[in-house]
Amino acid sequence: MKLANALTYSHTLLAATVERGDYVIDATVGNGHDTEFLSQLVGPKGHVLGFDVQVAAINSATTRLKDDGITNTELILAGHENVTQYLPANQTVGGAIFNLGYLPGADKDVITQGETTLAAINGMLPHLKKNGLIVLVVYYGHPGGQDEVNQLLNFAQALPQKAYHVLQYQFINQVNQPPYIIAIQKR
Amino acid sequence: MKLANALTYSHTLLAATVERGDYVIDATVGNGHDTEFLSQLVGPKGHVLGFDVQVAAINSATTRLKDDGITNTELILAGHENVTQYLPANQTVGGAIFNLGYLPGADKDVITQGETTLAAINGMLPHLKKNGLIVLVVYYGHPGGQDEVNQLLNFAQALPQKAYHVLQYQFINQVNQPPYIIAIQKR
Repeated sequence: MKLANALTYSHTLLAATVERGDYVIDATVGNGHDTEFLSQLVGPKGHVLGFDVQVAAINSATTRLKDDGITNTELILAGHENVTQYLPANQTVGGAIFNLGYLPGADKDVITQGETTLAAINGMLPHLKKNGLIVLVVYYGHPGGQDEVNQLLNFAQALPQKAYHVLQYQFINQVNQPPYIIAIQKR
Repeated sequence: MKLANALTYSHTLLAATVERGDYVIDATVGNGHDTEFLSQLVGPKGHVLGFDVQVAAINSATTRLKDDGITNTELILAGHENVTQYLPANQTVGGAIFNLGYLPGADKDVITQGETTLAAINGMLPHLKKNGLIVLVVYYGHPGGQDEVNQLLNFAQALPQKAYHVLQYQFINQVNQPPYIIAIQKR
């Protein structure tokens, strides 16, 4: 078997940790691919809260989910840094995914930023249940990408090991800066 | 589910890539734990070639394998840098594992070294079959460990991406230098 690329491995990690009935978050809805994947993982009693700053993304994902008869998702046209406004105060979270960089096929000027990404993660961490997982798929080949990565890595490496496991999964011999994974699990 | 530690993940990777009947290598036999694991993966038609520089390790592993009725292993009292002397010239290899550092419970002065580790890897690479995998479990908390790691990383990052995938799997927020994984897969 071929070693899994970052995108495939992000799903492997979520499938291994998210449970049926969980409340989960798609922090970067984009075309809705991950939203649908999370929807299937949590099942009809679960809930997916999704964020995107682009109308086109929310519209396209809404159509996709409707076409597939999916009803356990809630899409918000806003940046993920606003997560605590939408996440009920006592709600535990089983998992979350971020695709960091830009929406493939859309406006490449719209990229995620270290500051808002960290605000979103900080908003979610207190809600994570035991073994709950935040998966960051980090694209960094675009202008500004390396800045975001450095902010993220500094933050992630400093997370207290008694409270979190932080995993990095990365192909290290490739010249084209393929995406890699940082995964934060609540202990 | 908890994220897998490096040791567990080394077995996950090998189980996903090594096939029944494969010829595989345990480059650091130690107590024979991985030798036995590989033996079970390849089954009675497969073959495990194992190396260790310590008589105590070879003796203890030999006893363990014999007690468990395992007959598809061949243990060599020699450093893994001699691998090409024991590996038949046209033999393809499905997988290999290195536990780099020292044998737990044994003489802590006996550690693996970057130069001999690289000689062993270079001896094996031409034999790797498509999707064949060399897994390095890297312990580096001991004196000299960081030197070996740096040599390994420089080597692994420079492997041509058209010929190999090189994956790093590491927990990045832990203060006690837990082992991490470098996995080299033939494309």
